[in-house]
Amino acid sequence: MLHLRNCRFVVTHDLATGTIKVLEEVDIKVREDGVVEKIGKNLRTESGYEVVDCRRYVVIPGLVNAHTHVAMTLLRGFCDDEEVCTWLQHMWGVERELTPEVVRLASELGIMEMLSTGTTAFIDMYYMPEQTAEVAERYGIRAALGPVFMDVMYSAKKVENDLRNLVTMCRGMRYVRPIVNVHSIYTCTRETLERARDLASELNLNIQIHISETRHEVYRCRKETGKFPIEYIAELGLVTERTQLVHLGWVASWELGIIRDQGATVTHCPVSSMKLATAGFLPIKEMMSMGIRVTIGTDGAASNNTLDMFRELKAAVLLHRHGYWSTDINAQHVFTAATVRGYELLNIKGGVIAPGYVADLVLIDVEKAPLQPLRRDNVLSTLVYCVCGRDVEMTMVSGKVVYWRKRDEEKWRERAMEIANKLNKYMEKYLT
Amino acid sequence: MLHLRNCRFVVTHDLATGTIKVLEEVDIKVREDGVVEKIGKNLRTESGYEVVDCRRYVVIPGLVNAHTHVAMTLLRGFCDDEEVCTWLQHMWGVERELTPEVVRLASELGIMEMLSTGTTAFIDMYYMPEQTAEVAERYGIRAALGPVFMDVMYSAKKVENDLRNLVTMCRGMRYVRPIVNVHSIYTCTRETLERARDLASELNLNIQIHISETRHEVYRCRKETGKFPIEYIAELGLVTERTQLVHLGWVASWELGIIRDQGATVTHCPVSSMKLATAGFLPIKEMMSMGIRVTIGTDGAASNNTLDMFRELKAAVLLHRHGYWSTDINAQHVFTAATVRGYELLNIKGGVIAPGYVADLVLIDVEKAPLQPLRRDNVLSTLVYCVCGRDVEMTMVSGKVVYWRKRDEEKWRERAMEIANKLNKYMEKYLT
Repeated sequence: MLHLRNCRFVVTHDLATGTIKVLEEVDIKVREDGVVEKIGKNLRTESGYEVVDCRRYVVIPGLVNAHTHVAMTLLRGFCDDEEVCTWLQHMWGVERELTPEVVRLASELGIMEMLSTGTTAFIDMYYMPEQTAEVAERYGIRAALGPVFMDVMYSAKKVENDLRNLVTMCRGMRYVRPIVNVHSIYTCTRETLERARDLASELNLNIQIHISETRHEVYRCRKETGKFPIEYIAELGLVTERTQLVHLGWVASWELGIIRDQGATVTHCPVSSMKLATAGFLPIKEMMSMGIRVTIGTDGAASNNTLDMFRELKAAVLLHRHGYWSTDINAQHVFTAATVRGYELLNIKGGVIAPGYVADLVLIDVEKAPLQPLRRDNVLSTLVYCVCGRDVEMTMVSGKVVYWRKRDEEKWRERAMEIANKLNKYMEKYLT
Repeated sequence: MLHLRNCRFVVTHDLATGTIKVLEEVDIKVREDGVVEKIGKNLRTESGYEVVDCRRYVVIPGLVNAHTHVAMTLLRGFCDDEEVCTWLQHMWGVERELTPEVVRLASELGIMEMLSTGTTAFIDMYYMPEQTAEVAERYGIRAALGPVFMDVMYSAKKVENDLRNLVTMCRGMRYVRPIVNVHSIYTCTRETLERARDLASELNLNIQIHISETRHEVYRCRKETGKFPIEYIAELGLVTERTQLVHLGWVASWELGIIRDQGATVTHCPVSSMKLATAGFLPIKEMMSMGIRVTIGTDGAASNNTLDMFRELKAAVLLHRHGYWSTDINAQHVFTAATVRGYELLNIKGGVIAPGYVADLVLIDVEKAPLQPLRRDNVLSTLVYCVCGRDVEMTMVSGKVVYWRKRDEEKWRERAMEIANKLNKYMEKYLT
């Protein structure tokens, strides 16, 4: 049980108004079951509660990294100033030969990065997800993940078996949930897509798919099926309220209608989309005004190259102001996307700091020159445009302190270097 | 005198090839006069040299923030999700009433931010520059600054007098140099522009001007003068090899020819241009291939909202990959722009780690999960796409340690909070 005393500011979605509210100098109490109990001025000290002095911290709900490939920390910075096709060949060359140990170590590196930069939950798409699941559970970060349907890499039968095993494995886990991952329409046959759909339905799981990321993909889909990508997968029954559509940089206006009507969720990865020069532009304003749920992800470390959600939020605003020639998209939109909307997608009562919601909280140390002068009127702006992951002092999931700079920094540093040495040895054969 | 021992990597421009080179596990020795003396493996320990163990640091040349308004930390996050015109009215409302003390304090906050995030030199445009100059000299950061020609705010006569006084003041300073600042063609008459030109020529100073930032500015210039902005000021003799043209988001191809022919320098502020939704696109590829010198700046904290040059470098690559639909612009381009090109603009022999160059150096602590796995082949990528200012351990100007996290962090934190409290008191009357 925790008592966060005298938080400088608490910034959270206001359930009543749907806007962001800022509370000043309040306490937050967290119950034994990991749920927020009470928020208010000068709450009474009770025995059994660990008290944390929060005078120099801003407290926010944990951030949801709605799309990543966490073990791709292995490939961070690898050939990443080459043209996209060459880069992808390099990636796949390494990925064809991955070992469970490497996936586990690289996942650990990425999970340390995410927890220490304020991410409390992530949705992953990568190979050998049972390795990532094990590490996530051990560190206490929420994860939604599953094996990836991708015919060029694995048979659909193998993926189905892996998924069924993962579902069993997750029953004993507190933080990890299975999902059905489908790499894309250009790496899966129609039969595989149908199999994924049936499995999601049978097992009652979310489906995550990369879609409409590049013009080439849209062109090819149109040529081969006569349909645009969303039309194509919608016809196959893959667009439902349990579907998560990632990228959508090249989506047509009438496809948005399908997404809205089916209640699917969209995930935007602005940095990756810019860095890979896809030139895609996710129509976030139209989506939001239509009531489509928009979430935000960093994508993998190979195409970003950080897993820092704070930097991602700023990038999202910048990209859309540049693209729309207007300041319509602002800090409030992206903050909501990364908190409330992320937890909605995960179907967890969180993303808001209010009684009854899970205590997935992040404490940000704001007493430093780059984040000052701070006031009630500019705290949200500071969170989105100035804060970066390195400013996080503590990350809590279900009321459990899973990262605390003053406690973990040195230990995690040593562990990160141990892992890095192993990963670099592994990568030697790929370096020319 | 300093002896940086066993630097994990040294990343710097290679004078011989014009590309970036990476040295591994070398030592750097800095002479008493603040110049790099020697670089090499296992240099001999000599008495009189302070030895710094650099096994966990990457060493790079200091970054030049080529365009900012440092005292605008006062206005960080103030009304910044409003439309640009409204935002500008808010800014000017406060700026009309600035006091020397407020400019001095806000400059100090900004200078602490810049030094602690790896910036060793900045070019400033703001009111009461003598206040900023005094703080820069005291902290030991290089600054180029001067009063601003801007008819709507001050008479040209007053600005000229202030400039002459500043020139005198700077004679006694080691780190600060005067420049002629011209706000823009839309806030200065032709006579004022000519006066600025004559002063720059008489006093042998650089001229810095905001130009072609918005479509509106270009349209108005064309309408009023019959010329495009660069044509207009070139005809007045304001485009020379001592001219620094800032923004250029709406420049025409034939204006680039003028810039190249006259040898002027360009400064790109990608975050500010995106955040203010100017929709401008500085044609960096064409400029670089024409041999135009391109530098990078953060602009002021009111439109960014950080002064972190690392984040600016990443934003520059992202914007141009998005805009060009290609990965042509890469880490090497922006790293060179922020180091070598910045020092060229300042006319200081720096921006390169080589014997005879000023020891303006930055040590980056890379032993942490978000910057691993690090290798020789991905260190430049890591610097541009992963590092942020918070990773800086030490900043050195002319061989003097002006920021050292382990020494200064707590002291600077306290000072930042003192200043923030004063600035927030001052801002009270502007908050509704």
